[in-house]
Amino acid sequence: MSELRKDPVSKRWVIFAPERSKRPSDYRKDKDEEVKVDLEEESGKCPFCEGKEKTSGDELLAYEKIPGRKPNSPGWWVRVLENKYPALQDESEIGKKGVGIYDKMNGVGHHEIIVETPKHHKCISDLEYNEVEKVIWAYRDRYMTLQEDARMKYVLIFKNYGKDAGASLEHSHSQLIATPVVPKRVEEEISGARHYYEFRDRCVFCDIVTQELADKERIVEENDNFIAFVFFAGRFPYETWILPKKHSSNFENITKKEVMNLAVILKNVLKRIKGALGDPAYNFVIHTLPINGEGQHYYHWHIEIMPKLTKVAGFEWGSGFYINPELPEKAAKILRDTNIE
Amino acid sequence: MSELRKDPVSKRWVIFAPERSKRPSDYRKDKDEEVKVDLEEESGKCPFCEGKEKTSGDELLAYEKIPGRKPNSPGWWVRVLENKYPALQDESEIGKKGVGIYDKMNGVGHHEIIVETPKHHKCISDLEYNEVEKVIWAYRDRYMTLQEDARMKYVLIFKNYGKDAGASLEHSHSQLIATPVVPKRVEEEISGARHYYEFRDRCVFCDIVTQELADKERIVEENDNFIAFVFFAGRFPYETWILPKKHSSNFENITKKEVMNLAVILKNVLKRIKGALGDPAYNFVIHTLPINGEGQHYYHWHIEIMPKLTKVAGFEWGSGFYINPELPEKAAKILRDTNIE
Repeated sequence: MSELRKDPVSKRWVIFAPERSKRPSDYRKDKDEEVKVDLEEESGKCPFCEGKEKTSGDELLAYEKIPGRKPNSPGWWVRVLENKYPALQDESEIGKKGVGIYDKMNGVGHHEIIVETPKHHKCISDLEYNEVEKVIWAYRDRYMTLQEDARMKYVLIFKNYGKDAGASLEHSHSQLIATPVVPKRVEEEISGARHYYEFRDRCVFCDIVTQELADKERIVEENDNFIAFVFFAGRFPYETWILPKKHSSNFENITKKEVMNLAVILKNVLKRIKGALGDPAYNFVIHTLPINGEGQHYYHWHIEIMPKLTKVAGFEWGSGFYINPELPEKAAKILRDTNIE
Repeated sequence: MSELRKDPVSKRWVIFAPERSKRPSDYRKDKDEEVKVDLEEESGKCPFCEGKEKTSGDELLAYEKIPGRKPNSPGWWVRVLENKYPALQDESEIGKKGVGIYDKMNGVGHHEIIVETPKHHKCISDLEYNEVEKVIWAYRDRYMTLQEDARMKYVLIFKNYGKDAGASLEHSHSQLIATPVVPKRVEEEISGARHYYEFRDRCVFCDIVTQELADKERIVEENDNFIAFVFFAGRFPYETWILPKKHSSNFENITKKEVMNLAVILKNVLKRIKGALGDPAYNFVIHTLPINGEGQHYYHWHIEIMPKLTKVAGFEWGSGFYINPELPEKAAKILRDTNIE
């Protein structure tokens, strides 16, 4: 059973998931073997593949190719499943308690997998635009369902691509974790955006959009609704953000037209990263307001894409200081100039 | 020439060091080849080895084995060098400027290497206690020198051990980066500690010491001056903190007696980690107050040791949410029970 514990200094909540624990010696062994087992799984054995629906557990949602398809059978575009090794689980009540000076609570939450395609060897940048749209709609549909759970404060939608980014299965998928607390970085962003708003009476992200459109040199791609750019103060080389051009605090308010344009820019940016950098591992995270959270005027939802190119990690984790070897202007030019035909 | 840029939302400064830039295709290539080149360097070619002093650049400090030894020659315990690929450099003046809504400054600072032993194949846990003491004194001596530079706000002392922790040379060494800004995580800690102090009129770290000594179950080792324990809300499996038992905000105020006891506990904890977990990569970072910083009453210097066991990284970077598979009580017992004779 997982639990959440709070750092009394930084006030960060950490999820402890002992079901995922290993014997001490297995950490190093797994590293040496580079956790090849799952990643090299043949498509015939993969529970996410079309035809293997019975082995993956019951679907929470599926977009059917054929009307009237039976649940957990072939003939789908996107399928949503419960994570078999969840970081958080749907328990009855939230129980908070103090342990001396420390605070903890039980690990109430949801942890789902969004299988993005029935085909084992396709990734987002291989999909058609209309297939990527369906992935985005699945994010939103599950968001809408999970936000009804009154115990939840945040729904985190993210993707780990490649084993260096933490993916343990090769078949293209995203994840969704609903949590009873707001992630620290989201809180910091909201607080920073509020501070800027109090000072300037404008949304800092809207100002970023204006500045990027004027400067042009960090832009990777743009369309009617979105811009993608290498972030001015990104922590990682080629860290790329996708922002709606029009102010919008909540991802779930996205329109049909915006979903179409987001699918285009997301697929294209991932294709540029793959082409320019030799198919690196990456993570992306959707940043949006907490459920029923304040900040409609000054927060602005967006996607942060972080290719996993450098190994320097623990030092940054320890200090909060990041060293980025690539100037964003140069990285943006390389991504812009990458052929994605 | 490196530069610092500020994230207008989170207010984090990031160091951009384009001298460390690579061609886009080289990131992936280096990953595939696991950057073996430097790490497998023979001791005969290593610039940090005894006898190779001329190849490493002029030493900034050395503790001599023989009085009257000539600089940059054999016969030393610990040597401090300038980093050949510095993240920050000693330039003349700090130049801050705005670029539209963004802020940046030039990359003024210092970046030094502390070679911990003349022997190529020794790591801290192989050294004698009195040799580890000399490493700690070198940290402090360089700290005392660098804090005199009025442009500097913080001196970050840290160690990357093993390539997964970002080490690019095998020969045992630590690093020291003096920066014109305070690292974000340090600022957060100070602010969190101040908040706790305003509320309870006590240092949160002193309360942690009291609680850990009472609970006992997370303690790895203790002596007259220090306790080492697996942190209650650690972000990483086996994340171990070393705290002075007596309140002290500034590392540089350490006494001779404390240096002796810190050497013992640091070496022993690293030896336990090595023994229990199969010699994993790790980072450690000394957290102390900024130069001339406020917080003497409520901040408490300490060392955070983070073994690099899990790969889940980008998601955590993106969200600030951490999933730790190991309960600290279990990890502490494993480290405690590891034989270090």
